[in-house]
Amino acid sequence: MASTTAPSVASMTEMRRLLLAGPDFSLASVDPDSTPGFDGGKAQGKAALADGAEALSSLQEKLFAESRAGSEIAVLLVLQGMDTSGKGGIVRHVMGLVDPQGVQHHAFKAPTDEEQQHDFLWRVRRQLPAAGLIGVFDRSHYEDVLIHRVRGLSPAAEVEQRYAAIQEFEGEVTASGTRVLKVMLHIGKDEQKARLAERLDRKDKYWKYNPGDVDERAYWDQYQEAYQVAIERTSTADAPWYAVPADRKWYARLAVQHLLTATLEDMQLSWPRAAFDVEAEKRRLAAS
Amino acid sequence: MASTTAPSVASMTEMRRLLLAGPDFSLASVDPDSTPGFDGGKAQGKAALADGAEALSSLQEKLFAESRAGSEIAVLLVLQGMDTSGKGGIVRHVMGLVDPQGVQHHAFKAPTDEEQQHDFLWRVRRQLPAAGLIGVFDRSHYEDVLIHRVRGLSPAAEVEQRYAAIQEFEGEVTASGTRVLKVMLHIGKDEQKARLAERLDRKDKYWKYNPGDVDERAYWDQYQEAYQVAIERTSTADAPWYAVPADRKWYARLAVQHLLTATLEDMQLSWPRAAFDVEAEKRRLAAS
Repeated sequence: MASTTAPSVASMTEMRRLLLAGPDFSLASVDPDSTPGFDGGKAQGKAALADGAEALSSLQEKLFAESRAGSEIAVLLVLQGMDTSGKGGIVRHVMGLVDPQGVQHHAFKAPTDEEQQHDFLWRVRRQLPAAGLIGVFDRSHYEDVLIHRVRGLSPAAEVEQRYAAIQEFEGEVTASGTRVLKVMLHIGKDEQKARLAERLDRKDKYWKYNPGDVDERAYWDQYQEAYQVAIERTSTADAPWYAVPADRKWYARLAVQHLLTATLEDMQLSWPRAAFDVEAEKRRLAAS
Repeated sequence: MASTTAPSVASMTEMRRLLLAGPDFSLASVDPDSTPGFDGGKAQGKAALADGAEALSSLQEKLFAESRAGSEIAVLLVLQGMDTSGKGGIVRHVMGLVDPQGVQHHAFKAPTDEEQQHDFLWRVRRQLPAAGLIGVFDRSHYEDVLIHRVRGLSPAAEVEQRYAAIQEFEGEVTASGTRVLKVMLHIGKDEQKARLAERLDRKDKYWKYNPGDVDERAYWDQYQEAYQVAIERTSTADAPWYAVPADRKWYARLAVQHLLTATLEDMQLSWPRAAFDVEAEKRRLAAS
């Protein structure tokens, strides 16, 4: 059974390789409807996601345990993507299978007045995960080179300087002990239309609909270009980008689970040794 | 099937009534091994917890949706209990079934130097849930009338004043639109010993063990008394205390799920109306 429903660790590594935005990365060449590294369909993908929950959960607990023993390690997962690309679904269906105490989630909205008075990275630094946690950014500092570039919210020269600033910032974060992985959830323009239409068809989805989302569709190609530039200029060995096809929600969730699991496996986590005399404590406890 | 595995809403209300710390509350009369309002055993309790996840999840989404439409409502669940009473398990197994984006979790540790320079409620105010969220406090401002009372960390006269300060504070929180419910997870002293022993028996649990926990066991009766006083002096209609027997983890989780669900049901949440012209938006989207 396992061989047909759950990809092996070998294929997890292969999936990561296929999704990595390397030196010749071309977003236009990524088919949003594809499922790189996974041969199965929706049912198998969902089963594989459920199968993978325990491994990820156990790795998260080790990460947390190591921090209790004094380690400064953490993980930061950055999620970006066009509206309706499924960032919230990743948080819910991938991170939702992990102990909430080990996850630090933050959704970045349009900056507040206070935030605008600082450098664009100021508010991001404040949300970096504490030791032992998996931080999840739903949108991030990349908005400052995406919507800012496309809609001219900042001067072009300033946006231009931000790529290097981001590289430097992420280098610092990595050096401090936090592994960074960045995921672009890549959906097609037609799939976005279908997802927005669903929000207009169901009364329990109206609250998720924002008329501004339709306005942004007029800039679709410019956004794709902005993503291409951002990814090619900031995908580094320390803080790699992965372009995850996201027309099939089940695949995107499985892929992000695998990317996160593989990242945690690389950290070679282990259960901390007892910082006390186990036998002596057993005697003390028995007498208490 | 449903009638044997899942309590009806009627029994949910009954369970809440049984667990409420009312005017004549006596902690000593609560059997930590009992399962008030639930006749089934572990398997049925676990099934009931799984059955209840969807209702709680749907209510949470409505709470969140209403906040997007401008409502200031939120919920605050305060969890207290002796070490190993299962606060973390509630976060994981009850809150873990709800969208992480709708939950704001905070574990209060020993106060930092900065926190100690302020009133004991200062750090608590900073962690109150934002509109639309379910805030979960793993420990809380009640530590300031529990361990502070038992171990003399603050002068007795100061502790004495805190009960009224807490009532006033929680009254403000309620008035601002946040429903407050407070849960004491009540375990027996022998059950605590067994749970601590397990942490000493398993290498993957050593990190959860703290020799100080055994020291605190010498003050067991004083802690029970401190809980009794805290509960009888701060259980109000606006911010009620529930004493949840917690020797059976499955029961405590089910009970907290029910208490939270019942609290959200009281709020009579509904999906916000569309703040836009649905038909006009459908046409705009189709043309985009």
